[in-house]
Amino acid sequence: MTTIFADRMENTRKSFIREILKVTQQPEIISFAGGLPNPGLFPVEGIAAASEKVLSEEGTNALQYSTTEGYLPLREFIAQRYLEKSGLKIDPDEILITNGSQQSLDLIGKVFLNKGDRVIIESPGYLGAIQAFSLFEPEFSNVPLLDDGIDTDLLDRTLSEGRAKLFYTVPTFQNPSGITYSMQKRMDTAAMLDRHNVICVEDNAYGELRFAGEDLPTIRNYSDNTILLGSFSKIIAPGLRMGWICAKKEVMEKLLIAKQAADLHSNYLSQRIIYQYLLDNDIDEHILKIKAAYGARRDLMVNMMAEHFPGEIGYTKPEGGMFVWVTLPDGISSMDLFELAIKENVAFVPGTPFYTEDGLGENTLRLNFSNSDFEQIEEGINRLAVCLNKLNVNKQIAE
Amino acid sequence: MTTIFADRMENTRKSFIREILKVTQQPEIISFAGGLPNPGLFPVEGIAAASEKVLSEEGTNALQYSTTEGYLPLREFIAQRYLEKSGLKIDPDEILITNGSQQSLDLIGKVFLNKGDRVIIESPGYLGAIQAFSLFEPEFSNVPLLDDGIDTDLLDRTLSEGRAKLFYTVPTFQNPSGITYSMQKRMDTAAMLDRHNVICVEDNAYGELRFAGEDLPTIRNYSDNTILLGSFSKIIAPGLRMGWICAKKEVMEKLLIAKQAADLHSNYLSQRIIYQYLLDNDIDEHILKIKAAYGARRDLMVNMMAEHFPGEIGYTKPEGGMFVWVTLPDGISSMDLFELAIKENVAFVPGTPFYTEDGLGENTLRLNFSNSDFEQIEEGINRLAVCLNKLNVNKQIAE
Repeated sequence: MTTIFADRMENTRKSFIREILKVTQQPEIISFAGGLPNPGLFPVEGIAAASEKVLSEEGTNALQYSTTEGYLPLREFIAQRYLEKSGLKIDPDEILITNGSQQSLDLIGKVFLNKGDRVIIESPGYLGAIQAFSLFEPEFSNVPLLDDGIDTDLLDRTLSEGRAKLFYTVPTFQNPSGITYSMQKRMDTAAMLDRHNVICVEDNAYGELRFAGEDLPTIRNYSDNTILLGSFSKIIAPGLRMGWICAKKEVMEKLLIAKQAADLHSNYLSQRIIYQYLLDNDIDEHILKIKAAYGARRDLMVNMMAEHFPGEIGYTKPEGGMFVWVTLPDGISSMDLFELAIKENVAFVPGTPFYTEDGLGENTLRLNFSNSDFEQIEEGINRLAVCLNKLNVNKQIAE
Repeated sequence: MTTIFADRMENTRKSFIREILKVTQQPEIISFAGGLPNPGLFPVEGIAAASEKVLSEEGTNALQYSTTEGYLPLREFIAQRYLEKSGLKIDPDEILITNGSQQSLDLIGKVFLNKGDRVIIESPGYLGAIQAFSLFEPEFSNVPLLDDGIDTDLLDRTLSEGRAKLFYTVPTFQNPSGITYSMQKRMDTAAMLDRHNVICVEDNAYGELRFAGEDLPTIRNYSDNTILLGSFSKIIAPGLRMGWICAKKEVMEKLLIAKQAADLHSNYLSQRIIYQYLLDNDIDEHILKIKAAYGARRDLMVNMMAEHFPGEIGYTKPEGGMFVWVTLPDGISSMDLFELAIKENVAFVPGTPFYTEDGLGENTLRLNFSNSDFEQIEEGINRLAVCLNKLNVNKQIAE
């Protein structure tokens, strides 16, 4: 029966993370594997109040079919926030409400990618983007991340080879690495892409979650050709599946066609609820709480690692977001570590799925800190340290 | 800038209906154009109560990321309902919750269609399906509808030409025609498709809305290879964007990969709300109300047409659903009628967008009766009758 499926389905690997998450759902496991925001910080009461208000005052309307673009007041709110926070002048008609950033990626793939088109992606890169774009059968070019963002020399070289249509980046608190592009890298990236007529897809899912350092401009600040993605998943709640694409009008026209064909429009009741929540609450105050909670978790995780991990192990110290990226010494496999760790009831995501090229990142892994409490972080890092000792990391290095 | 887009975007026409709907949103216009369920029948209070309950009892959980398949108790409910209503034994794991049937179509297109693959579609056919599949660049083959369903002789001939992968049908209260397949046609269609190894995509969006005649088995009852689509849009409310795909496991495995890449999972809060609503309310009782309301509207519309339209005009008398299909005498253009009608402040959808082949259906049009009240139906049909007189329908026939 397999032959009846479209060719594009041949390229899909079953999501490794999905499989891991199944394993890690047992309650006895301390999981640093998922990419989940902390549910204790969901504004449940605010959402309940907003829902009650929308349904009692506008229920009939909020339950009917609606426009493909999304609820206008919500798009106006987002545009206004871009102006206030980033100095970006965005027309609400340049914003399309989507079912979370994952759908934004799917729509962008659909609108831009022919089979064989080149997509440049960070290495390591966001798995959801790799999955979404893969179904349009592009060729991926990997450009490595350095501590301050993409390796612009290699980016330039890759761009010079031609054929690239999109560059996908999470420049702020990247998933999986936690890395943030410096201002210079943002400027250079924007200029370089413009020079080569390649569109930047800037995924800013975590940008509001900065708990250290200074806010930086978006790449969109340096180039209008950037397609900027935003999401309420990390600052309100992901179960509502609510994100947006910000793109200029020529692009938006195509995105609207793709969105209409994909599902007519995003869940309208949820759009109304989120807007009502934003109207009746101070979202910045709420974000402060998330930042404080995540910052404290990051500090604890990084401090525990400094104290208990062998010195040869490297890790990022992200200024925001939800992830720490760990690099084991060369020759130590994070898959081997994973197998030991599961026996100790602690889980993480080995790094290889974040690379589109085989053989890369075998000594890397991703740790999520947002969805654990302090006790779990202490205990989980201790257990990982035990596993690392079992792998004889120090000894192997010494040999 | 247009050259940067994917080839698939070249084939897309701007949705004509979308453009029409913009025109017809002025309050002075009586619109039979949209495909909207009647918002007066949305169970607003039931949804509000369910929402309050879910958020107060399970808020944290209901707002978190969830599984791609959808909320298991909701899928179990749907499976149980298939068993009770249609005698279908469906495993809940053969059900995937989608953002309404439109997304079901997009996912099916993605999973099955290579460029140039043949899709057989009813003529006239459902516009949303044409739009969704078009983005995967298939070739459409049209098979005309007769009064009792698809023209099976022509379907067989088209199937014999080979290359077809999918046959898309709305066999019950079809959109746009209102036609329902006879039991014989359902059996013949299923057998014919199985013989040719072509998958039936059976869209049953309106099947529960029967206000006359007897319920019939689904095509799925006659062939397990059928992919059956369902939706809560017409029996609860469309703003929640909640539908499902029922497909056997080999297909479901691929659909899950596509769904995960498309948006991870459907809005989880809304899944929980709908399930809570179904648990706390008698959905069959609610559907009875919808059927009574739509049946009375259909009766009035058809009776008004019998009384006031020239005798040469044909129209379907659907036993359920939301649409009447009108056929003007040959040579009379429904676009001409549309222009006159808009001046009289009454709107409908001309038939040509429902055909994938140019030049077909120029004398046809679709009337929606679900979203108008009795006064609007009386007045609207009267106005259309005036327009038809202006077009000299009787006189042209006489000449």
